[in-house]
Amino acid sequence: MQISSSLLENAVGEFARLPGIGRKTALRLVLHLIKQDTEEVQRFSNTIRRMKEEVLFCSVCHNISDGAVCSICSNPSRKKELICVVENIRDVIAIETTQQYNGLYHVLGGIISPLDGVGPDQLNIQTLIERIRPGEVEELIFALNPTIQGDTTIYYIQKKIASWPVRITTIARGISFGGELEYADELTLGRSLQNRMPVEKYVSH
Amino acid sequence: MQISSSLLENAVGEFARLPGIGRKTALRLVLHLIKQDTEEVQRFSNTIRRMKEEVLFCSVCHNISDGAVCSICSNPSRKKELICVVENIRDVIAIETTQQYNGLYHVLGGIISPLDGVGPDQLNIQTLIERIRPGEVEELIFALNPTIQGDTTIYYIQKKIASWPVRITTIARGISFGGELEYADELTLGRSLQNRMPVEKYVSH
Repeated sequence: MQISSSLLENAVGEFARLPGIGRKTALRLVLHLIKQDTEEVQRFSNTIRRMKEEVLFCSVCHNISDGAVCSICSNPSRKKELICVVENIRDVIAIETTQQYNGLYHVLGGIISPLDGVGPDQLNIQTLIERIRPGEVEELIFALNPTIQGDTTIYYIQKKIASWPVRITTIARGISFGGELEYADELTLGRSLQNRMPVEKYVSH
Repeated sequence: MQISSSLLENAVGEFARLPGIGRKTALRLVLHLIKQDTEEVQRFSNTIRRMKEEVLFCSVCHNISDGAVCSICSNPSRKKELICVVENIRDVIAIETTQQYNGLYHVLGGIISPLDGVGPDQLNIQTLIERIRPGEVEELIFALNPTIQGDTTIYYIQKKIASWPVRITTIARGISFGGELEYADELTLGRSLQNRMPVEKYVSH
């Protein structure tokens, strides 16, 4: 793509460096910004810079945070005895969006994956163990992706904490709501038969 | 989407305001930037701000420019007697990318579209007429989108300049290279029959 202005060219180059954004999309975004008011573009630019410069990671759960302790860990109405272990910040946001969970989180920062050179030492596992040590945590819910690496990570952590009286669970795996049996993969369908759940009986009064 | 950090939330909001970018994509872009070095994010932020604050529009052709006159208009090796009339900057970039054109441009900044409230006065038509007035321009090539509005714009301008000895052409319209006849719309196929082109005969020596 031949762009005659170097200012425009540089801006397109910066956008095109973002994941999933090619040069054509980058050009569309930049031409959109050119049409906006200068103050609006300055606000865009400042918000991004400030976010990077000021964002912190929670010292308790490693979630993204505006302060030393994140708003979830410092919320007194959340259940401190429940910890949901997730791979990354995106998973925290996904679970928070369901509005079905009222406990705390622990962000591992990845999962054990020897092929990618990620071992237990690169993950926030030691801080998780230290959170469990005082004995106040009753249940650890693993919400990791249902892959070999996810299962390996669960296995590794549960072995480490086997001596503590903590209940260990994992989010339910099975057929998605709205999914069709005939399109489900064999592994999921087979496992969901093995792990079948009782149907609650509604008794009319 | 529930984001616990307001810094993150604001950055996601800014990206989500861009065209074609939803909140999930915005989050992915922001989390990508968080992982980069601070200098890299500062460069991203500064490049965008500088682009908006410093970018100019060429006083001759209204193309985007780093100075008062753009690099195309000030290039001595380009043919000054040829002017290609386009709707917007994106079209200049598209034509430049073909590397098949060595003349100058004139960016109208839109096309005549009464339904959208765009009349001739909102477009850069007067400056085009003034560029033709000295009598040095030999050909005006219209490269507008083949729509009713595009044709109206061509008709309006060519009436205005009918008294000058300028050749007026439009880019060829017909079946795309690699296109299939059976999928072409009737109008395009009908017109491409009417405007059929002679086949050059290769004579073996």
